[in-house]
Amino acid sequence: MADALSKAAADILAANSEDVARARERGVSGAMLDRLALSEARIGGMAEGLRQVAALPDPVGQVLDGWRRPNGLAISRVRVPLGVVGIIYEARPNVTSDAAALCLKAGNACLLRGGSEALQSNVAIVSALAGAAERAGLPRECVQLVASADRADAAEMMRLNGLIDVLIPRGGAGLIRSVVENATVPVIETGTGNCHTYVDASADLDMALEIVVNAKCSRPSVCNAMETLLVHEVIADEFLPMAAERLAEAGVELRGCERTRALVPTARPASDEDWDTEYLDLILAVRVVDDLDEALGHIERHGTRHSEAIVTADYTAAERFCAEVDAAAVYVNASTRFTDGFEFGFGAEVGISNQKLHARGPMGLSELTTYKYVVRGSGQVR
Amino acid sequence: MADALSKAAADILAANSEDVARARERGVSGAMLDRLALSEARIGGMAEGLRQVAALPDPVGQVLDGWRRPNGLAISRVRVPLGVVGIIYEARPNVTSDAAALCLKAGNACLLRGGSEALQSNVAIVSALAGAAERAGLPRECVQLVASADRADAAEMMRLNGLIDVLIPRGGAGLIRSVVENATVPVIETGTGNCHTYVDASADLDMALEIVVNAKCSRPSVCNAMETLLVHEVIADEFLPMAAERLAEAGVELRGCERTRALVPTARPASDEDWDTEYLDLILAVRVVDDLDEALGHIERHGTRHSEAIVTADYTAAERFCAEVDAAAVYVNASTRFTDGFEFGFGAEVGISNQKLHARGPMGLSELTTYKYVVRGSGQVR
Repeated sequence: MADALSKAAADILAANSEDVARARERGVSGAMLDRLALSEARIGGMAEGLRQVAALPDPVGQVLDGWRRPNGLAISRVRVPLGVVGIIYEARPNVTSDAAALCLKAGNACLLRGGSEALQSNVAIVSALAGAAERAGLPRECVQLVASADRADAAEMMRLNGLIDVLIPRGGAGLIRSVVENATVPVIETGTGNCHTYVDASADLDMALEIVVNAKCSRPSVCNAMETLLVHEVIADEFLPMAAERLAEAGVELRGCERTRALVPTARPASDEDWDTEYLDLILAVRVVDDLDEALGHIERHGTRHSEAIVTADYTAAERFCAEVDAAAVYVNASTRFTDGFEFGFGAEVGISNQKLHARGPMGLSELTTYKYVVRGSGQVR
Repeated sequence: MADALSKAAADILAANSEDVARARERGVSGAMLDRLALSEARIGGMAEGLRQVAALPDPVGQVLDGWRRPNGLAISRVRVPLGVVGIIYEARPNVTSDAAALCLKAGNACLLRGGSEALQSNVAIVSALAGAAERAGLPRECVQLVASADRADAAEMMRLNGLIDVLIPRGGAGLIRSVVENATVPVIETGTGNCHTYVDASADLDMALEIVVNAKCSRPSVCNAMETLLVHEVIADEFLPMAAERLAEAGVELRGCERTRALVPTARPASDEDWDTEYLDLILAVRVVDDLDEALGHIERHGTRHSEAIVTADYTAAERFCAEVDAAAVYVNASTRFTDGFEFGFGAEVGISNQKLHARGPMGLSELTTYKYVVRGSGQVR
């Protein structure tokens, strides 16, 4: 499939030029146009991505568990593909090959529905991938595209119970909400991360500084970036001015509670809304708290159960934070930015699940599988 | 909670009498009335069920997996409660205590919505359970009832995203379809089992006979009962007459393909519809097939991915059946009736999932949990 993609580069680029021209006519903006546009180099990157996924261990066939019952039945729980995975995404043609690779590697057929602006590009990409699958002895239909720009077709796809086993939306909040609200097929919801870092009374302040700057600044536009900093009052007067200086150097705008603003006069006042906002930008809400309990309460009220961190040297505080914070990933003395399939060592990332059912947090190939029970007997009846 | 239920028996029975009287006035039928009506003995059974669940091992806190990354981060995947589990069920008051026990044992709060005919009974039962939880130091709100007979309230419950983590419908096909179609909250679908038993050319025919009779007759009304028998043509003339005789003794009506009827003249002709029907009754569809491939094709087309069995002495046939049949449970030389949380050794059963996401097949306490990643670091940034 990687080879086929490279060989079909001219066709894919020609189709992509049509998509880009049409998008331009419709007045599509710069950033969106950039995500839509392909180049030789980007197609090379997509092919390289396919090779990386191909090199991963096959998750299918793993025996997850097994036992023998008193009546002699030998039961094993075996990892098997989900079946047909539906992916609904935006006008980013690179997602087409990435999603197809991940689904296929986990033994699934996939039905892809990309943004209508990328339709011709996606037709060309899927044609190359499906042709390669067929030449490798797989059914050509294992990679399929909903080759339609009609929204009604996407809506119909969301209700194909019995034909699609799971639907994964990949994209912005609006897309995800639309899929969650309209789908009757089971959905894995990926999504918002209103992530916190709590700097405890006992924290190593140099460590806290590096973690805070990294969590906010290393890539502010992603879901695992920190959006709110909570600081214990006993170290606030020392920590906040030094943090404010480093964050200002990085171009971060601070929005603080009253106690924060008393220590950092440059901070703008935070409104109630700020505590619930996923900025995805160089903006940080800052709040001074009385103690760990207030920090836990704030995270409980305002967090989105994604990634939450404590910086502390106190054993009890660390253990309480890990146990009491309800989130896909809880961190002690590390940046929330590690919530990622590659950083967790999965070798791939299907997305980061923001729900508790089936998969939580970073999803690798295993999360695109299910299991079945294989029961071997010798004539047992009940 | 078991003690409280027994102590509140008089109140519960009084409330139940009101429910039963009202249902009678509305002309509710015998079987439904029987499921609605409680007695001292039935309340004793509910209390005993609570004690059995209480005695099970606690699933929460189990470390499912753990590893260290090259950067030193120690990642562990820990089993935690789902949070709030919603259960929607019919007018069977015993489900109220059973569902509450299972949810609570796995660390979840539960929101229960039983059939409106059982409303007063459920109010009394939940009052006893919640009071006992409170006296044991838990929040009283960990067991809650939607104390309303209004269908609009059930519909609203299905859309409480962010407040309910998972919804499990327990009941008939109509209830389940309604929840799957209307819920935006993640649902675990339990449901239909159109289960097959395939008697291969090499089968031990005495073993096959016992398995077939058990799978059809031991409890025909449940989802793991066999609905269609597939028989390899080379043993059909020997096996089918002996099976027909035993099944006739048990009162089973046979509906056969033409080849079956040539061997068993008492069988009625099967229509196309029969292959897709979950009778839940003493009726069995019977088809003679040319070989394993035809049996696999029939199961693929007509099965509901629940429980499928082969009776065979042939190694390759057994392995192919296990690998190629897509179902929650596949059996070699055993009755499909074993698809059950207790028979699998889980000590409890929340239901039998008929979907592939999160949980497949019999669900025990573990299936009422999720996991979180606990990541312990020493200042790592990305």
